[in-house]
Amino acid sequence: MKVILDFCIVPLGVGVSVSKYVVACEKIFQEAGLKTQLHAYGTNIEGEWDEVLKAVKECHIKVHEMGAPRISSTIRLGTRIDRDQSMQDKIASVEQKLNK
Amino acid sequence: MKVILDFCIVPLGVGVSVSKYVVACEKIFQEAGLKTQLHAYGTNIEGEWDEVLKAVKECHIKVHEMGAPRISSTIRLGTRIDRDQSMQDKIASVEQKLNK
Amino acid sequence: MKVILDFCIVPLGVGVSVSKYVVACEKIFQEAGLKTQLHAYGTNIEGEWDEVLKAVKECHIKVHEMGAPRISSTIRLGTRIDRDQSMQDKIASVEQKLNK
Amino acid sequence: MKVILDFCIVPLGVGVSVSKYVVACEKIFQEAGLKTQLHAYGTNIEGEWDEVLKAVKECHIKVHEMGAPRISSTIRLGTRIDRDQSMQDKIASVEQKLNK
Repeated sequence: MKVILDFCIVPLGVGVSVSKYVVACEKIFQEAGLKTQLHAYGTNIEGEWDEVLKAVKECHIKVHEMGAPRISSTIRLGTRIDRDQSMQDKIASVEQKLNK
Repeated sequence: MKVILDFCIVPLGVGVSVSKYVVACEKIFQEAGLKTQLHAYGTNIEGEWDEVLKAVKECHIKVHEMGAPRISSTIRLGTRIDRDQSMQDKIASVEQKLNK
Repeated sequence: MKVILDFCIVPLGVGVSVSKYVVACEKIFQEAGLKTQLHAYGTNIEGEWDEVLKAVKECHIKVHEMGAPRISSTIRLGTRIDRDQSMQDKIASVEQKLNK
Repeated sequence: MKVILDFCIVPLGVGVSVSKYVVACEKIFQEAGLKTQLHAYGTNIEGEWDEVLKAVKECHIKVHEMGAPRISSTIRLGTRIDRDQSMQDKIASVEQKLNK
């Protein structure tokens, strides 16, 4: 089962700057060979369910190891069985209609 | 790693009534032996990361099998390594201060 | 337009304990006369769109005043025009089918 | 109070294709003069709290008018009082560290 997931990790107890934790997660997704797209409030990730969710778990483990005692992350999870759709397809589908 | 997760599943392409899909998910969580608490916009689930996320995956599979061609779910995921905290602890911590 | 909203506020830069900030928000919702239900990962709120969203804004203002330099909150927002549905209706609809 | 908001609207009861509703929302944000960035699972919006949240309300009203009987949207809301930070700042902060 393929998933398009939107992930936003928020470490608590480590001050207001969270970018280094986001960077650590980006590296985990890259090393896992997953397609990702960073945006201003999270990261889109595309891949097989198990691989993507394994990477999300590794993010929590890594960010705790980096010193965050508590993490609250939010996820949107999209699956569909009617047809194959990539992250790029989703964006193109909106942009085509916008530019008409 | 223990997680407190808040799960809200939204099936698309099956009309406006989603309660039977939520019921199917509740049964999956119960059968997995997970502690859950239903609320008006999702379900709180407490347990080991792998067990909880496995149940979430089963929900997507089941809801697709029930006929939903597309699913968009949202999740909040809380982990902490500084101390053990249950769902009930979290609620009690707020209610104690509220009633002062 | 009526809304059922699920609100989870996460203050950053104030350590790992967030319950006093949640308590401050609960008081704002109560003083606004809104129906709410606290759960382990947020609060369900029911009411007119403008009143509910005004209270959410007051929560951000209050939590900043209490000392949080940064806030990241998450919201689920449900509206429907086909029929009236309360938070209690939503839960009852699931529980009836669960107990069959 | 400035906000960076991430918005994902999910209309129910109108089938599996949601892009035309997303397009309608993009137009609302553009006409409101708000800075936005579309991604594969939502839209980042930056602006004054009241203007951004007014546009979000207009999205729900518009999508109902277009025929969706029910809507479930999700929002991430970030505010900070320690310093000014744009959507572009957030992305740059991560990308600088990633490319080191």
